[in-house]
Amino acid sequence: MKIDIVSTPRLLPVRFKDAICVVIDVLRATTTIVTALAHGASEVRPCITAAEARRRAESENKTSFLLGGERRGLRIPGFHLGNSPMEYLDPGKMSGRVIYFSTTNGTPALRRAFQGSGRSVYLAALVNLSAASTIVAKAAADNASERVLLICAGRHGQPSLEDFYCAGLMAQRLQSEFAESGILPELSDAAIPAAEYSMMNLEEPLAIFAATEHGRYLKDIGFAADLEFASQIDKYDVVPRFDGKRIII
Amino acid sequence: MKIDIVSTPRLLPVRFKDAICVVIDVLRATTTIVTALAHGASEVRPCITAAEARRRAESENKTSFLLGGERRGLRIPGFHLGNSPMEYLDPGKMSGRVIYFSTTNGTPALRRAFQGSGRSVYLAALVNLSAASTIVAKAAADNASERVLLICAGRHGQPSLEDFYCAGLMAQRLQSEFAESGILPELSDAAIPAAEYSMMNLEEPLAIFAATEHGRYLKDIGFAADLEFASQIDKYDVVPRFDGKRIII
Repeated sequence: MKIDIVSTPRLLPVRFKDAICVVIDVLRATTTIVTALAHGASEVRPCITAAEARRRAESENKTSFLLGGERRGLRIPGFHLGNSPMEYLDPGKMSGRVIYFSTTNGTPALRRAFQGSGRSVYLAALVNLSAASTIVAKAAADNASERVLLICAGRHGQPSLEDFYCAGLMAQRLQSEFAESGILPELSDAAIPAAEYSMMNLEEPLAIFAATEHGRYLKDIGFAADLEFASQIDKYDVVPRFDGKRIII
Repeated sequence: MKIDIVSTPRLLPVRFKDAICVVIDVLRATTTIVTALAHGASEVRPCITAAEARRRAESENKTSFLLGGERRGLRIPGFHLGNSPMEYLDPGKMSGRVIYFSTTNGTPALRRAFQGSGRSVYLAALVNLSAASTIVAKAAADNASERVLLICAGRHGQPSLEDFYCAGLMAQRLQSEFAESGILPELSDAAIPAAEYSMMNLEEPLAIFAATEHGRYLKDIGFAADLEFASQIDKYDVVPRFDGKRIII
């Protein structure tokens, strides 16, 4: 069993059909999707473009959809919701809704992970860290998979520290999960320093987020509260899974 | 001033003409090139293919050249030398020689760094860590450059822990060098955890190399001594510089 981290989808190997994939986009797509599903949304459908989101929402003839997502961190014009998890907390607004969702880094990462692995992709963030680690370890065992690939969404094709940090914590949790089943997994060259760095800074997610490039940008455009929200380890126990069309719990 | 680390040349930005570039390939190309120049070789000419090395050695009409390099870690058939620094220690063999040199990851990284930056590229490894940090900080100041890019050669397009470790130490040294000149540089999202991880493992380079994917491979094919050699921090004070054609001190 090998636990690997790719710091951006650009570093995905050509073939990874053998891998259980996890997509991590802490600021903010996977945090927000976990939040939406935890507060009653029935499913989230990731879309690459805003036009795709509008077109699918109409053609799939949903009466109770919402359009959500961002460009440059801000709500897409004409959409109901942006990409702040704070907008997805109201059960009255979320209950039973299908959310067509388009973001800059997170949604393309989900699509690429599904296309490359050909199987369900899990979504993780700090808010569902333990639950995601448990489910992913179980999925690897159930599928006799020899590899878990933690895919950081990153930012414009470059690594993001907040995703690397989350992936490092998850690598360490997965090691513990596997060890309990008597398996001693190998960490890749990328996963070794991520796990060590993250464990050393376990108590400091908010301070780390505040120092990252995207964290500083989000603060600048008025989303400081999102950093605090996204830094809450294990706030939820839901683990979203993308089956190639929709994301459900 | 920003200090950035790219964990493989695949993550180089499209444009980085403003940057002072450093290429790091600890196991083994930059370690070996430093060693060759420290022991009297007059210059090293990086070549992408073995055929290019042979052709240039002939056409450039050198009477005292050597062919050096590896594929899959082993000496290229017909070449005088492989990619082990231990082969480049003898002043009698090195003195005044021009070495045409081709390796899997290091030499393409040098070429790409030069093409993208359009200016001299520095070579670093643990064996010349402090000297390289001093020279690079000075070059950034002299050129009024706002960015230092530490480019890890990596392995087959994936990150290598030994390069990430060396880059992290160098990021930290550069921070100190700049601080002495009253400049407080910013570390990129990739450089923050690298610097912290490396400083935490400052005393352990050999143990880290032994755990890496390429370190284990080199041990398997009989080059365990190279790991020990490459782990010697500050063994040399030479800093090679690639000017687009040749590498000289």
